[in-house]
Amino acid sequence: MKANALKKAVDAAMPLGIELLETLRTETADRAGVSRETYGPKEQFAHDLLRKAAENLDLETRIDFAGNLYMTLAGSDRSAPGWITGSHLDSVPMGGNFDGAAGVIAGLVALAALRKLGHSPARDITVMGIRAEEASSWFAGSHNGHLGSRAALGMLPRSELDGAINSRSGRTLAQHIADAGFDVDAIAAGRQALDRDRYRGYIELHIEQGPVLENRAIPVGIVTGIRGSARLRSARCIGEYTHSGAVPHEYRSDAVLATAELCYQLDREWEAVRKANGDLVFTVGKLYTDSKAHALTKVPGETAFTMDLRSQHLGTLEDMMAKTRALADEIGRRRRVRFELGEFNISPPAIMDASLQAQLSDVARELGIDALALPSGAGHDAQDFAHAGYPAAMIFVRNAHGSHNPHEALDPADLALGTQLLTRFLAS
Amino acid sequence: MKANALKKAVDAAMPLGIELLETLRTETADRAGVSRETYGPKEQFAHDLLRKAAENLDLETRIDFAGNLYMTLAGSDRSAPGWITGSHLDSVPMGGNFDGAAGVIAGLVALAALRKLGHSPARDITVMGIRAEEASSWFAGSHNGHLGSRAALGMLPRSELDGAINSRSGRTLAQHIADAGFDVDAIAAGRQALDRDRYRGYIELHIEQGPVLENRAIPVGIVTGIRGSARLRSARCIGEYTHSGAVPHEYRSDAVLATAELCYQLDREWEAVRKANGDLVFTVGKLYTDSKAHALTKVPGETAFTMDLRSQHLGTLEDMMAKTRALADEIGRRRRVRFELGEFNISPPAIMDASLQAQLSDVARELGIDALALPSGAGHDAQDFAHAGYPAAMIFVRNAHGSHNPHEALDPADLALGTQLLTRFLAS
Repeated sequence: MKANALKKAVDAAMPLGIELLETLRTETADRAGVSRETYGPKEQFAHDLLRKAAENLDLETRIDFAGNLYMTLAGSDRSAPGWITGSHLDSVPMGGNFDGAAGVIAGLVALAALRKLGHSPARDITVMGIRAEEASSWFAGSHNGHLGSRAALGMLPRSELDGAINSRSGRTLAQHIADAGFDVDAIAAGRQALDRDRYRGYIELHIEQGPVLENRAIPVGIVTGIRGSARLRSARCIGEYTHSGAVPHEYRSDAVLATAELCYQLDREWEAVRKANGDLVFTVGKLYTDSKAHALTKVPGETAFTMDLRSQHLGTLEDMMAKTRALADEIGRRRRVRFELGEFNISPPAIMDASLQAQLSDVARELGIDALALPSGAGHDAQDFAHAGYPAAMIFVRNAHGSHNPHEALDPADLALGTQLLTRFLAS
Repeated sequence: MKANALKKAVDAAMPLGIELLETLRTETADRAGVSRETYGPKEQFAHDLLRKAAENLDLETRIDFAGNLYMTLAGSDRSAPGWITGSHLDSVPMGGNFDGAAGVIAGLVALAALRKLGHSPARDITVMGIRAEEASSWFAGSHNGHLGSRAALGMLPRSELDGAINSRSGRTLAQHIADAGFDVDAIAAGRQALDRDRYRGYIELHIEQGPVLENRAIPVGIVTGIRGSARLRSARCIGEYTHSGAVPHEYRSDAVLATAELCYQLDREWEAVRKANGDLVFTVGKLYTDSKAHALTKVPGETAFTMDLRSQHLGTLEDMMAKTRALADEIGRRRRVRFELGEFNISPPAIMDASLQAQLSDVARELGIDALALPSGAGHDAQDFAHAGYPAAMIFVRNAHGSHNPHEALDPADLALGTQLLTRFLAS
């Protein structure tokens, strides 16, 4: 298949993708942005819309026990291991229209383009509309997200199904899944919706959630790895409330100055990692004194804070966790306070398959598409496939204003370039 | 007068003081501790109780236009400038029983002891029961407190009377003063309830609000100066909310890490001042990210914080204010954030009169009372007398557990020692 013919076919199929995105935007709109609640009616709307579009393209469709949607273009050799491509169809509350949906629709556009070309690929290509990637935005206690992919891969434990509570209904995730008509027991039993031997790998197109492609004026990225994270959800520093004027330095147990020093010293550790060309981001997203007890004229007796460490390298995370504990001990002793960090919640990094990255790079060059190798700082369904032993890869598409907000801005021309890359890769 | 006779007379008069304190504790009790609201009925109860006790001692009593109570033992030369001693009778909400009241009652016990001795002092001694020292705990917008002493000294501007709002009633301070039966117009006009020429100076006994005397096992302190303060009530750091995983360091505007560095660097400046034997305390009592916008997985786009700098030396405060502004500028530029510090609210320090300090020191030695020279970190009515040009002095009495809480712990034996010192000083 000639590169030019493929590019033209993708461009010709793009209006279908744009129309699907516009329908999604209109039908799942909220006060601001879109809200496609995990296992809620708007997520279901997205699945129904995509399924109908797939049927119009004469694709085989199937829905698994967790509600994931599979849309397959048969290959010439149906026994050869096939590709899975896709992403999720839910969103965060009042989120953007492209996070997730762009990847499913790009997959469908790819299959539509191949249909147009009359091209029968060597192996099956399955587009997957995944459930519940954003579960942690809707269900308190659902810390790891990615429920749909983990359910399909047999990696979603019962404890998460019963322990996650919907912030609006107060009902459990298990109850919401059952209400939506899916099989909680099959999920909890670790059944697999995918036969590992029947698939060659997983490739996901997604908008970049950071500003790197935008700032470097490059339309497409090839992901090197998905950063893992080590997180403290409710760390505290315990000092003692005393009079801010009358108590001299040596009798103070100041929780704010101790926490400030911990942040400052960890920021310097981060700087050292960057200087050594390591991969790390470090964020204290919440930090607060107790509004019921703090005052302008009191030495602060307590702080609460969170910590989010992310790296493509587990060793870097382990090193930073050890440094955090050591600094908290040392600063605590010296400043007469006690840090209660709690346990780190760890999500391991997922390295993208080197050979798939190289293929994507080759295809981009062949198509004349400028592409940048970069890490993914956010989590994606692709990491679960990687953890389950699938060769996995990701294509990022340039996007302004970040994600998880109504201002996501994806240029259709960029989406077309990413989809060309995806299509050529899947068809090769 | 012999020192021993005086000590015995004070000890003999102490039961009156203890009984008054117990009556106050019982009759102004709240759910926890005591609540003697500024210009409220419980403060009035304290004034009525003390006035009756003064009348029982045949003292001259008078109430000024702001509701301050004066209880005078006539001296042998009524034209000689007299002493004022006293403190305030209100408390913070659910505060301790001793903060303020101990000083007024010590003054009354001193006069009772002199009466017992049949001693007619050389000059008038007036015990002042002051109003509204704790106003800032009851009235939002009343930042400087000490309303009673400032009203008596003609230093309470109209703007404070109209701008301070009672947190419960929503009515202004002026309305509350009028409701309590006092003359708002006289206060606002800057009338003086005290004729400067008729007084030799002001001396106040107060519990120590810090832990210094307790920790050093010394019953009594002689105050060197009252720290002034420079305060930021609502400083902010403005950054930008972004994705905590996907945004690399060079694109972040992290308000928490910028604020942490500001706190850390100012803490180091404080250390430098201490090493140079300077006088300073530095407190960031409130520090918080925005609970409506912050998240574990967002780079924090904003912090709010307060700052309380206190020193006996105005130069030290000025130096720290300049350093705060310079650091905020430098850190803001380097970290791509903007600090909005606002204006510092400045309350100048008040140095206690050197000659009165020396006299107190001599008297303590004569009475065999161990006394420590130390600064006052908290504000007191004494500072307003000092600012109005009165020679002023303060006696601190050891107190466990700080003040402004129900756990203030004043040993009656320590109060007796402080009262002996006060009595001997006033009678000399």
